[in-house]
Amino acid sequence: MRVTILGNNSALPAFGRHPTAQTVTVYGEVLLLDCGEGTQLQMQRYGQKWKNVHHIFISHMHGDHYFGLPGLVNSMSLLGRTAPLNIYAPAGLEPILDLILRSANTELKYPLHFHRLSGEGGRLVESPTFSVDFFPVEHGIECYGFLVETKTRGRRILPEKCKEYNIPVEHFEELKDGNDFVAPDGAIIKNAWVTAEGPEPKRYAYCTDTLFTERFLPLIQGVDMIYHESTYLEEDEDKAIARFHSTATQAAELARMANAKHLLLGHFSSKYKELEPFREQAARIFPNVTVSVEGVAYDL
Amino acid sequence: MRVTILGNNSALPAFGRHPTAQTVTVYGEVLLLDCGEGTQLQMQRYGQKWKNVHHIFISHMHGDHYFGLPGLVNSMSLLGRTAPLNIYAPAGLEPILDLILRSANTELKYPLHFHRLSGEGGRLVESPTFSVDFFPVEHGIECYGFLVETKTRGRRILPEKCKEYNIPVEHFEELKDGNDFVAPDGAIIKNAWVTAEGPEPKRYAYCTDTLFTERFLPLIQGVDMIYHESTYLEEDEDKAIARFHSTATQAAELARMANAKHLLLGHFSSKYKELEPFREQAARIFPNVTVSVEGVAYDL
Repeated sequence: MRVTILGNNSALPAFGRHPTAQTVTVYGEVLLLDCGEGTQLQMQRYGQKWKNVHHIFISHMHGDHYFGLPGLVNSMSLLGRTAPLNIYAPAGLEPILDLILRSANTELKYPLHFHRLSGEGGRLVESPTFSVDFFPVEHGIECYGFLVETKTRGRRILPEKCKEYNIPVEHFEELKDGNDFVAPDGAIIKNAWVTAEGPEPKRYAYCTDTLFTERFLPLIQGVDMIYHESTYLEEDEDKAIARFHSTATQAAELARMANAKHLLLGHFSSKYKELEPFREQAARIFPNVTVSVEGVAYDL
Repeated sequence: MRVTILGNNSALPAFGRHPTAQTVTVYGEVLLLDCGEGTQLQMQRYGQKWKNVHHIFISHMHGDHYFGLPGLVNSMSLLGRTAPLNIYAPAGLEPILDLILRSANTELKYPLHFHRLSGEGGRLVESPTFSVDFFPVEHGIECYGFLVETKTRGRRILPEKCKEYNIPVEHFEELKDGNDFVAPDGAIIKNAWVTAEGPEPKRYAYCTDTLFTERFLPLIQGVDMIYHESTYLEEDEDKAIARFHSTATQAAELARMANAKHLLLGHFSSKYKELEPFREQAARIFPNVTVSVEGVAYDL
């Protein structure tokens, strides 16, 4: 699993930083989390292929998290997309998109499926290789976090070894499931001879925008990486609370309580040019912390 | 009058070119013509001050001409704007903006006045120093061009000369109107001694997106500069017609028929990387042609 940051600033673009958007790549599938203004350009800039995007998740209806969506939806159609696109967002987004398309007489060249987020959360996507869940966070208006989880694809095939034992490709799925192979002459090829431990499943939690809250802690316990907003530094905690945001220190506290392996900070207020203080303040509580940088990919 | 190009590409951003937006600066006032996605960033990049913008004109409801507007409207509020903002656009835009603001519980910190464009055109803004008119163009959906006209501010004061004749500042307006000054001792200071010819009024026509059409020719006769879309080259004229766009040749033909002084080309299809052929094709018909470049300001 790989997280690529396309925008890590809060509402006002500043210091070359863009509004929120990021991709999570899982086995070739590109999930888009939020879609601030300019996301289609950021995707071009950082080599994120639109055609591999089939699921877009919008956390909430503040514009810095979705104003890039209408343009992306249009561009996909102009480029001749035919594959369905799924959008998961609060109910308010659907009528806006509808009006935008209608007022331009636009008929998209692909099916757009809108999935309304509401209530206490649950599973949004279930595929053979990954799943996505959503959960409520606390941001003054309806707002959700997302949990992306890869599944193990079973044991890992060792192609050279399989060749050595003359195992045909069509038996690889059985090998992945852990079964031995019985050769035509009755010889048993032990699974462990031709496979290795498969990749560990990974879990990534995306929590922005939100006040410091423990309400979703059980769901994200032990995640490999958590992206948590840190709009403000500790000294501006009063602003963070007033505006339903968090500080770097609070993000670190949550990562610690969640027993996360890695904390990625983002959604920085445009009042800060220098971001190193975010790392410093968070690291006091949670050492394995990274200040996200646009265009950089973080592997889990 | 100065035109600064913020985006000169058609719908799909490509080759570093952005969707349509440009500013027209007249006596310190910044008029924004169209507002494609990323306009607020382009304005930052090219030093166009948001606080000097009081009028935004949207030609039509294709997203590449207004998807940057919601973000700009929000950002102005976040930056504490209190001055009213006027938006002139087809009727379809107002309910979209309303829904966007409502779904985010946003109350703008400044008054936003929406002016619906419809019918055969007319005057939108009348100020002591400039005016803006709109007129229908032909683009499949309701679409308008704009005509910006500066007014002469009368004769130009020569401060050194006025000092020499001891003329107090409070009499400058009379001098601008062409009147002589009568000194306290009865001496008559001739207007021509202390003023010079004022700046010529200038006229700028903005015509995008549109088929080649003569319908607005009378209105733009003799303009100092015309910005006319040239989405396609001559060899793609069939595409231009099918999609309600123009070729470089047609733009030049229109500039010639309008007796314009200068033609500025823009709204290039993303299929073209090199733009020099646009200039070449247009120059055969209308020599004083310029291929617009983002970030460049063109003086009238």
